[in-house]
Amino acid sequence: MSATVSTTVGGITTARGFRAAGISAGIKANRGLDLALIVSDTPADVAAVFTTNLAIAAPVVVSREHLARSGGVARAVIVNSGCANACTGDEGMANARVMASETARLAGCREDEVLVASTGVIGVGLPIEKITSGLPRAFAALGADQGPAAAQAIMTTDPFPKEAAVRVVLDGREAVIGGMAKGSGMIEPMMATMLAFVTTDAAVPQPLLQRALRDAVNTTFNAITVDGECSTNDAVMLLANGRSGASVNDASYAAFVDGLTTVCRELALGIVRGGEGATKLVTVQVTGAASEHDARITAKAIANSPLVKTAIHGGDPNWGRLIAVAGRAGVAFELSRAVVTIGSIVLFQDGRPHDERAPDAAAYLQGKALTVSVDLGSGTASSTVWTCDLSAEYVKINADYRT
Amino acid sequence: MSATVSTTVGGITTARGFRAAGISAGIKANRGLDLALIVSDTPADVAAVFTTNLAIAAPVVVSREHLARSGGVARAVIVNSGCANACTGDEGMANARVMASETARLAGCREDEVLVASTGVIGVGLPIEKITSGLPRAFAALGADQGPAAAQAIMTTDPFPKEAAVRVVLDGREAVIGGMAKGSGMIEPMMATMLAFVTTDAAVPQPLLQRALRDAVNTTFNAITVDGECSTNDAVMLLANGRSGASVNDASYAAFVDGLTTVCRELALGIVRGGEGATKLVTVQVTGAASEHDARITAKAIANSPLVKTAIHGGDPNWGRLIAVAGRAGVAFELSRAVVTIGSIVLFQDGRPHDERAPDAAAYLQGKALTVSVDLGSGTASSTVWTCDLSAEYVKINADYRT
Repeated sequence: MSATVSTTVGGITTARGFRAAGISAGIKANRGLDLALIVSDTPADVAAVFTTNLAIAAPVVVSREHLARSGGVARAVIVNSGCANACTGDEGMANARVMASETARLAGCREDEVLVASTGVIGVGLPIEKITSGLPRAFAALGADQGPAAAQAIMTTDPFPKEAAVRVVLDGREAVIGGMAKGSGMIEPMMATMLAFVTTDAAVPQPLLQRALRDAVNTTFNAITVDGECSTNDAVMLLANGRSGASVNDASYAAFVDGLTTVCRELALGIVRGGEGATKLVTVQVTGAASEHDARITAKAIANSPLVKTAIHGGDPNWGRLIAVAGRAGVAFELSRAVVTIGSIVLFQDGRPHDERAPDAAAYLQGKALTVSVDLGSGTASSTVWTCDLSAEYVKINADYRT
Repeated sequence: MSATVSTTVGGITTARGFRAAGISAGIKANRGLDLALIVSDTPADVAAVFTTNLAIAAPVVVSREHLARSGGVARAVIVNSGCANACTGDEGMANARVMASETARLAGCREDEVLVASTGVIGVGLPIEKITSGLPRAFAALGADQGPAAAQAIMTTDPFPKEAAVRVVLDGREAVIGGMAKGSGMIEPMMATMLAFVTTDAAVPQPLLQRALRDAVNTTFNAITVDGECSTNDAVMLLANGRSGASVNDASYAAFVDGLTTVCRELALGIVRGGEGATKLVTVQVTGAASEHDARITAKAIANSPLVKTAIHGGDPNWGRLIAVAGRAGVAFELSRAVVTIGSIVLFQDGRPHDERAPDAAAYLQGKALTVSVDLGSGTASSTVWTCDLSAEYVKINADYRT
């Protein structure tokens, strides 16, 4: 890759011409920040990917409509946490529309230039009056230094906010790509993710922007899983306002995607590190697959296996569970040629265990960032997926979520 | 169904002409019962279904070979717990063969008339000398009253043994079908299950016996899941010795399958009730599906969803999680026509929540045997699957399994 990427501290407002705010509108019972606003000073090109869940939430429906109507131009994004506005019927749709139209009125733009997102409990009505009365305060709070507040305001069960930014050089001109994300449970995005918002001050033609987002999401947000659950509200939105003077064309596309992928990966890994009950970040590598599709399916199956995730939680180098998942994943698998590696320690090869190395692997598993690898012995394709361990704390969080 | 079924207390030796034993061969560290033997006094027709996991264990390979070579006749089944003899290479295969040949020598039958099964940790070598030195004691202990000992000897993390038996009337003659099963974790059988053994004193031609077993397994063992994991060693074996004088033909087939299904369902539900960390038995019903396949896929997705399982564990009528799983299951789903019911309480219908009924549903979820239902609003097909809740105890058991 032609990467000229340097990771910097930053987030959704690091790119020039973007301001944000995060305020408490009183949606969350604990009075925490729950309303985030992103505004581009000038109309921005926008690309987005959304959940493939058929129980699609009202804000996703509205955002899709607006994208289609505006032809991919946006001025503002309004996001609330504490309520998903999903499975809320006609009233939920009406509330999502009011959320957009009130934002448009205050921003002085068209309604279809506003995108809407919600996250929180499914099936609870959106307290729209709290949002409309909070919106003027959000606009008053807008600032180029308010990215951290916005990143706080989109959190639900997240233990920490997720922000990232990089500088990229495109044909000799510097641009910034920065973003924020939220998500901790109900995480196995399918062609999208939980909520993530990315801004860039590069100029990117909309079709190229959409293509870049799909390319970056495929190996980042779509390659993570906390619990194998795909949300009703998943969305990644990318706004490009061109304020840096740098622009993306065929020559600089690779550098832009490289930078975008770096930001998306950092945000996605933040979601996994902050997964519900997570104590370890686990990189699952599958190699020797007959196809990339097979590799991804197997990596996801391993990453979602409760037996693998609990073994890792317990620091147990139980490679038999990795083999058992690979064997049931429904892909080409050859036991006699399969290899299981934990860290760099080969525990199963040539059809035979190497349990004399188990103590080394157990010591390695005491770490916080781990890699487990399975070679399927059936080809040359590979895939990498990220997940976390499964702890008793996950059960506690989700058994008590609404009580 | 033409059922003349009465459930009786009984197990693997309730059918005439079958004896069993369960002894301690010293395979388990805790010196518990770990070697089970089933002998038919006369050659029995035998049918079996095995794991579809491609990381297939040595005893499964050997049992399949023997079934093919004998043409479906068996005299004895030898089973050890405490070691799965899976992923153990050529030595594992040799050990499984010795286990069969030694049993055949003591039973006075051909080697291919012996079936072999193992269950326990994957990737650990089978201590074959403990088994061969234990075998004479197992033969000495054989008795028509030793079914309970055999059911104990096949357990690993199971909290209790699983036994069941029924009497069926076939063309006016009475026969017995009885069995035992084990399994608690790594349970989502695919065309098979964990270990289950069923005997009958009906005479059943082998092809009909295999067909009956497939029919019964499809709606019982193949309709349960504890954790979505399919083992390397899953097997269900059914022996028929004809000693009752009752025989199965086209006229009495339905009555036989009815009885066999009753036994298999009781054993399968025992596995779920005794699932690792389980505190509740959950029946998942999916209706309104476009096809039976769609219904089964969705029911399994719900039954394997950690968010659904933890909500049920916490007594939270979080119907939004059921809708979210149905929406991501990859099947036809119509949100506006979908219905979610917990017990008999409708919580979501016509696109709208009925959260005023949530307290009733929460009270219902305090029970130990629960039903949750989702209508996909897309057709007339349905499927029922059984699972258990997900508790912190599940994590504890599996994080510490080998330590």
